[in-house]
Amino acid sequence: MQKLNYLLGYPDMYIYQDSEWFNFSLDSILLPNFVQIKKNSKNILDIGSGNAVIPIILSTKTDKKIIGVELQKEVYELGVKSINKNNLQNQINFYNMDIKDYAKMQESDSFDIITCNPPYFKLTDDSHLNEDIHKQIARHELTLNLEDIMKISRKLLKNGASLYLVHRPDRMIDIIWLMRQNNIEPKRIKFVYPKKCKEANILLIEGVKNGNPGLKIEEPLYVYNEKMEYTDEVKKYFS
Amino acid sequence: MQKLNYLLGYPDMYIYQDSEWFNFSLDSILLPNFVQIKKNSKNILDIGSGNAVIPIILSTKTDKKIIGVELQKEVYELGVKSINKNNLQNQINFYNMDIKDYAKMQESDSFDIITCNPPYFKLTDDSHLNEDIHKQIARHELTLNLEDIMKISRKLLKNGASLYLVHRPDRMIDIIWLMRQNNIEPKRIKFVYPKKCKEANILLIEGVKNGNPGLKIEEPLYVYNEKMEYTDEVKKYFS
Repeated sequence: MQKLNYLLGYPDMYIYQDSEWFNFSLDSILLPNFVQIKKNSKNILDIGSGNAVIPIILSTKTDKKIIGVELQKEVYELGVKSINKNNLQNQINFYNMDIKDYAKMQESDSFDIITCNPPYFKLTDDSHLNEDIHKQIARHELTLNLEDIMKISRKLLKNGASLYLVHRPDRMIDIIWLMRQNNIEPKRIKFVYPKKCKEANILLIEGVKNGNPGLKIEEPLYVYNEKMEYTDEVKKYFS
Repeated sequence: MQKLNYLLGYPDMYIYQDSEWFNFSLDSILLPNFVQIKKNSKNILDIGSGNAVIPIILSTKTDKKIIGVELQKEVYELGVKSINKNNLQNQINFYNMDIKDYAKMQESDSFDIITCNPPYFKLTDDSHLNEDIHKQIARHELTLNLEDIMKISRKLLKNGASLYLVHRPDRMIDIIWLMRQNNIEPKRIKFVYPKKCKEANILLIEGVKNGNPGLKIEEPLYVYNEKMEYTDEVKKYFS
């Protein structure tokens, strides 16, 4: 069922979602808030944009050009509706195509920032059963895996430009390994913990193309406090 | 100047230190407390033991055999004095030699646990000026670097056995890269933050020889609270 929602934390902004497929999650709010946009940045590419929630949130932080690419036609069309509803057609260019084809067409060294909230789960024999195809593609590395993202980023990022990912901490070693293999040096990591005394369940990472080694682990972000209310830091993103 | 100190947090235990060289630090307390000793573990190797503080703390957690290896004669002799003062001669075997030579003499796949608090700083042109040789060797990768540690661990660890390191977060990517290159899969990481709203300044990491991918990021440890007193978790180690 399609719904029009207010984009929480962003008064006057809207997002179309289909509750049968998936709603945008905390991850999609955290990633654009982790992005640092430099003054001389000219453009941003968001890979696998879904209903365009990340480009729409990024538009509140910058007036630079934002490109979104989404493979699934039905999800893409929700994104177009959201972009139009927010009058962002001039800032956000949204394409319904495979990011691998998009990357082939583009010149090398052409983006200042790439963002991606990728499918989290590796393909295994028992993956993606009992799910519809929209969920399968969004959740499992069916059409896009970590290595694809790194190769695309290696080609499309300018020298010194940044790739931003949100992912699960259990895949961090794969992410770091593939980043370095593709000359993208991890420089900043932030872990998100559901609450105190729990393991981290969300990873935010920035890698810089041809960057020098040297990593910063930022202060942790807790989602809930002891009363199971959102913490002040998370409320900042939502209100 | 040599001093005999109580080993904080361990009543009836002592440690000899030379304040002109270096005192054992929080790092040396945190690492053995991060180690998980399995029931079927038979032995532990500590690389670059300094004044033997890590073997001595480990002895409070287990009665398994602990091997310590320290290159610097004067520092080694402090360690021997501490081991004797604590009557740990039967449990801790302490050798004054280069760990690389020790590793050559040992059989492959012979240790259940390896621990190391290594030199933190890469060698650069302006490294280790104005320091005496004891500090230089303990702080800079002069006689032992990360790659040496990984190669030694790859040889000496049994299949499924663990390497534990304490280090600086800014070297984490190098550590992870070298672990994977040497078939040691990072499995558990804990970050230590000096206090809230600061970046992490200590990294604790466990890698498992031939382990499957899949990482856990444990809850953070804060050293000081808002009043700049030790937090309860750190006090646990000290009292």
